[in-house]
Amino acid sequence: MVRCAVVGLGYWGPNLVRNLSTSRRTRLVRICDADPARVEAVGAQFPSAARGVDAAEVFADPDVDAVAVATPVGTHHALAKAALLAGKHVLVEKPLAANLAEAEELVRIAAERRRVLLVDHVFLYSPAVRKLADLVRAGELGDLLFVDSIRINLGLFQHDVNVLWDLAPHDLSIIDHLVGRPARSLSAVGASHAGNGLADVAYLHLDYGDGLLASVHVNWLSPVKLRHFLIGGTRRSVLYNDLDPSERVKVYDRGVDLASDPEGKRRVLVSYRSGDVVSPRLEQTEPLRNLVEHFADCVEKGAVPISGGGQGVRIVRVLEAAQESLASGGARVNL
Amino acid sequence: MVRCAVVGLGYWGPNLVRNLSTSRRTRLVRICDADPARVEAVGAQFPSAARGVDAAEVFADPDVDAVAVATPVGTHHALAKAALLAGKHVLVEKPLAANLAEAEELVRIAAERRRVLLVDHVFLYSPAVRKLADLVRAGELGDLLFVDSIRINLGLFQHDVNVLWDLAPHDLSIIDHLVGRPARSLSAVGASHAGNGLADVAYLHLDYGDGLLASVHVNWLSPVKLRHFLIGGTRRSVLYNDLDPSERVKVYDRGVDLASDPEGKRRVLVSYRSGDVVSPRLEQTEPLRNLVEHFADCVEKGAVPISGGGQGVRIVRVLEAAQESLASGGARVNL
Amino acid sequence: MVRCAVVGLGYWGPNLVRNLSTSRRTRLVRICDADPARVEAVGAQFPSAARGVDAAEVFADPDVDAVAVATPVGTHHALAKAALLAGKHVLVEKPLAANLAEAEELVRIAAERRRVLLVDHVFLYSPAVRKLADLVRAGELGDLLFVDSIRINLGLFQHDVNVLWDLAPHDLSIIDHLVGRPARSLSAVGASHAGNGLADVAYLHLDYGDGLLASVHVNWLSPVKLRHFLIGGTRRSVLYNDLDPSERVKVYDRGVDLASDPEGKRRVLVSYRSGDVVSPRLEQTEPLRNLVEHFADCVEKGAVPISGGGQGVRIVRVLEAAQESLASGGARVNL
Amino acid sequence: MVRCAVVGLGYWGPNLVRNLSTSRRTRLVRICDADPARVEAVGAQFPSAARGVDAAEVFADPDVDAVAVATPVGTHHALAKAALLAGKHVLVEKPLAANLAEAEELVRIAAERRRVLLVDHVFLYSPAVRKLADLVRAGELGDLLFVDSIRINLGLFQHDVNVLWDLAPHDLSIIDHLVGRPARSLSAVGASHAGNGLADVAYLHLDYGDGLLASVHVNWLSPVKLRHFLIGGTRRSVLYNDLDPSERVKVYDRGVDLASDPEGKRRVLVSYRSGDVVSPRLEQTEPLRNLVEHFADCVEKGAVPISGGGQGVRIVRVLEAAQESLASGGARVNL
Repeated sequence: MVRCAVVGLGYWGPNLVRNLSTSRRTRLVRICDADPARVEAVGAQFPSAARGVDAAEVFADPDVDAVAVATPVGTHHALAKAALLAGKHVLVEKPLAANLAEAEELVRIAAERRRVLLVDHVFLYSPAVRKLADLVRAGELGDLLFVDSIRINLGLFQHDVNVLWDLAPHDLSIIDHLVGRPARSLSAVGASHAGNGLADVAYLHLDYGDGLLASVHVNWLSPVKLRHFLIGGTRRSVLYNDLDPSERVKVYDRGVDLASDPEGKRRVLVSYRSGDVVSPRLEQTEPLRNLVEHFADCVEKGAVPISGGGQGVRIVRVLEAAQESLASGGARVNL
Repeated sequence: MVRCAVVGLGYWGPNLVRNLSTSRRTRLVRICDADPARVEAVGAQFPSAARGVDAAEVFADPDVDAVAVATPVGTHHALAKAALLAGKHVLVEKPLAANLAEAEELVRIAAERRRVLLVDHVFLYSPAVRKLADLVRAGELGDLLFVDSIRINLGLFQHDVNVLWDLAPHDLSIIDHLVGRPARSLSAVGASHAGNGLADVAYLHLDYGDGLLASVHVNWLSPVKLRHFLIGGTRRSVLYNDLDPSERVKVYDRGVDLASDPEGKRRVLVSYRSGDVVSPRLEQTEPLRNLVEHFADCVEKGAVPISGGGQGVRIVRVLEAAQESLASGGARVNL
Repeated sequence: MVRCAVVGLGYWGPNLVRNLSTSRRTRLVRICDADPARVEAVGAQFPSAARGVDAAEVFADPDVDAVAVATPVGTHHALAKAALLAGKHVLVEKPLAANLAEAEELVRIAAERRRVLLVDHVFLYSPAVRKLADLVRAGELGDLLFVDSIRINLGLFQHDVNVLWDLAPHDLSIIDHLVGRPARSLSAVGASHAGNGLADVAYLHLDYGDGLLASVHVNWLSPVKLRHFLIGGTRRSVLYNDLDPSERVKVYDRGVDLASDPEGKRRVLVSYRSGDVVSPRLEQTEPLRNLVEHFADCVEKGAVPISGGGQGVRIVRVLEAAQESLASGGARVNL
Repeated sequence: MVRCAVVGLGYWGPNLVRNLSTSRRTRLVRICDADPARVEAVGAQFPSAARGVDAAEVFADPDVDAVAVATPVGTHHALAKAALLAGKHVLVEKPLAANLAEAEELVRIAAERRRVLLVDHVFLYSPAVRKLADLVRAGELGDLLFVDSIRINLGLFQHDVNVLWDLAPHDLSIIDHLVGRPARSLSAVGASHAGNGLADVAYLHLDYGDGLLASVHVNWLSPVKLRHFLIGGTRRSVLYNDLDPSERVKVYDRGVDLASDPEGKRRVLVSYRSGDVVSPRLEQTEPLRNLVEHFADCVEKGAVPISGGGQGVRIVRVLEAAQESLASGGARVNL
């Protein structure tokens, strides 16, 4: 039983509170937010947790084994660092930190102190992405040719980060999880309309080498909500539509058959292929609940974090480079 | 009654033949293709048209007023030029030509000879795009904020052009028609998998100034067919889904309200807005039939071409610049 | 502030508990279920409510103004009757009672004791059905021609009632609310497969006179979940698809134009009409929350119940007649 | 090569003309319609066929092996009978005849004259229904529990027949083909709004025994077009949605597990089952082309008609009984 505290009770924090309080693997012992009204509102529903507005109290509490940090991204580094230095295991909201240096320092400290550092890349714990990962690892898709992810809706405009930092960590963590190697380079373009200079529409293109191009479209201005994640492979392709609860994942046994040319140097189009479409049965579990249980496994059983600090660093590195490309009008940035 | 010939009877030519032969505004007098078997096959269904394998015969025929050129893009320039010089009006398959110099020469010759030069940007003549244009022109959408077009499917791999030259003219002509001003700059990224070095997945981003970003995703490898064209405006937004025959166009009275800040220099987010969604009734006419009738109007009544040589040149200019950006890994190219 | 108790903590009871406890119009003062484990489980989340396993205690409590009965249908009558006789206002889960005599007695007692008797026909309080009712009442649909409702999925097999008693009260209450007059006759057919003699697939057809036919298909065996509610009118038609969260209600300005024939005795087909489709913006409120507030209005302000005992009786009358028709293989039963 | 004539060039006839003229198995030698304008219009596109307005000429022509009858249903019997008596093989539009006596006489004559009598139940020749039949015959669905077919749209009002006679032959022939045994009894309800006394909305329920209930909803008044054909089986279920071109058939490995009770007399619900959904690849052939080729097989090779006169009689018997039930307000009619 991991004794947990939650620091930050804004949009996402209450979800962590709920899951940490109802999972059998964790116990919610403290909640904390700088705003006393939020502490009051959330505390009323979870009366057994101690309440406070000062994170330092949380870190000083010897009865707290682990801290979940769900504050604005600009404060992730300071809070997570303090927690790690106080000997706590840490679960951090995505993205891990506001820049690469901060992210890397957190990883270093966690390693030194032998504490778990897990990033809340929550989609990796969804039944759908678990299925995608199974398919990729079992070779069912063959070599990956392209990934295209669309995550657009009339969004919650953020005032501290642009749409890439806000939404793309979801897509980037899924791609990182599936592809298993870092991108070589990227380019990003976008536009800002809300008057604060922060991009509200953005496109990110990542070159993973070996012909694999991954693209991410994130957008806060779309009146239509779309969540399409499309993976093209040499054997099969997959569409993961998070908004289709009855058939979230569809595996297409369709594609083009590519062969190696006689000298074996490149692929050659052989023919089109048309086959069945299969929508596999998925577990009916809540991603955040799965993540909380994985966090407990990391803390109690030494499990290797699925979305550990290393992945958190890779995602922040991509975001920082994307920011640079965005600022330059789309120039390619090597990673 | 415009007496027409069709040169090129491959994939699209027979559609021109059918429409030119059944419209009351045109008469099909000749068909021509270098391949006698194709001439035979198509001619059997349209016995009243003269047949031949030599385009020169078509251009020399005084009973031919106009020529539709539906051959591979590499031959557009030579054939259209010869037709114009022979005094024929010309309808050319998209894109207008294989490069900017050729396209511009065709426009110049058409102007000098006072002949109609129309490009077969057929989507502009669809009831859906006509409705989009009405909405934009009536100010129903307000200022345009972004355009996002997706045109992906398991495609007909072309051996002479990449996916941008093959598919993007559709999207680019629609955007050109709606936006009414040329893009300032663009960038493009893509990947090639079929072994011929031609991109089969590509993303094109165009900056039209004033915060308007237009993006086009074209892809021959997708097992899922998608045709989404999304326009975000300050007043309303529109989704045009060409694969939804019952509700092709949806107008969303949803968005974010943006106001000018006190100094009037930029837009400021005011609030979210949520309203009705309207799917307007569309005419049930065939786009190509509408185009053929517009061509007859241009020839007989001096109507101003909707998709004339000028637009054809703008599209080829964008394609050429996109090609350059693609080759450089996505560098921004000014137009 | 209405002080409420909930009797019955099975599938639906906890939803009542949550809404009665969080609405500002009501206070949850007691929860009760014959199963102590359920009382314990629900009580842990709502610690301020008194707990018990004996409904008589609830009825005897002078601090309870109103009782929500969410027990199996066979017990509705006894519990609601006892509550009314104890002077409590009563909210009863649908259907109101297990037979017409019981339902009528409850209405009589409520009238005599001047207590509110509200049936939990919760769909009437949904934003979608409120919109349908507005459209019907404003004459936007013209005369109603047909209603077709489909409510099928792989369902929770009930052991005490068949699929009609379980699911059709939803459809029947919506139809009753919209049509505003009782059906004249009905017929029902169905089949039973699970071995308990209770129909798991059933079709119910109601004749409302004036050419209005309403049909309801309920089914526990369907692997596909469908919730279509289609209303055909002389002016417009509406599709309410409860599973399409982005466009739950669509109003079709399409139909056939019918005119009265010269002698005015019947309608004559004039022509087809094709117009826009409008998906109106709907409120984002929870139906059960709306119902709870309406219940408070009835208790505190004397509001006329929208789904009062009278409607409850009409629904039970239809169900009883449908049962009779079902047993006879589909014979028409007058109401 | 079967030499064919088409009698009746209204809505469907031209489709027969086109397929009989382009199939390699048949030759179109004559077309005929009482309306000379129709003969002219169709004949212009198929100049090699002889034309006429008198069906007797067709039957008298020794160069005609087979006649396709695509006239209004009231004339099917007279024309098909004359053709058979003249020694022609006959393909008749659905339904086979306007009443049971006529249908049975045609079957008798065809048998006596040893001529092929095929009914144009064209859906049986679609790749989707062929797949359904394969699944049923291979036992993939287990025992059939229910069939529910919806065929509604803003329809072509017919002036000679009601919506059941017009549309339900499609559903009934598919069900007949899949179930393989005749229904025992049926009931039907409907309503008429257009002023001509012909039902434009109708529901038909067929009892096939062994717990199998099949239902058909046909409707000319629906502003929404739906074509759902749902089959529930003990092992798997299938949804055939004719309006979803990318996934017309979906096989659900979901359902309830039913077991026989200890005494083996009835089925008992065991548990729910949730599995994959598979959308099998379908051939891309045109149903009417497949039917034409099957007709040629019957004529030339003695193949057993898939939709022969026997099926035609069964469908007409159901329609006649449905008409009787409809007239009586839904009374059960034994077959």
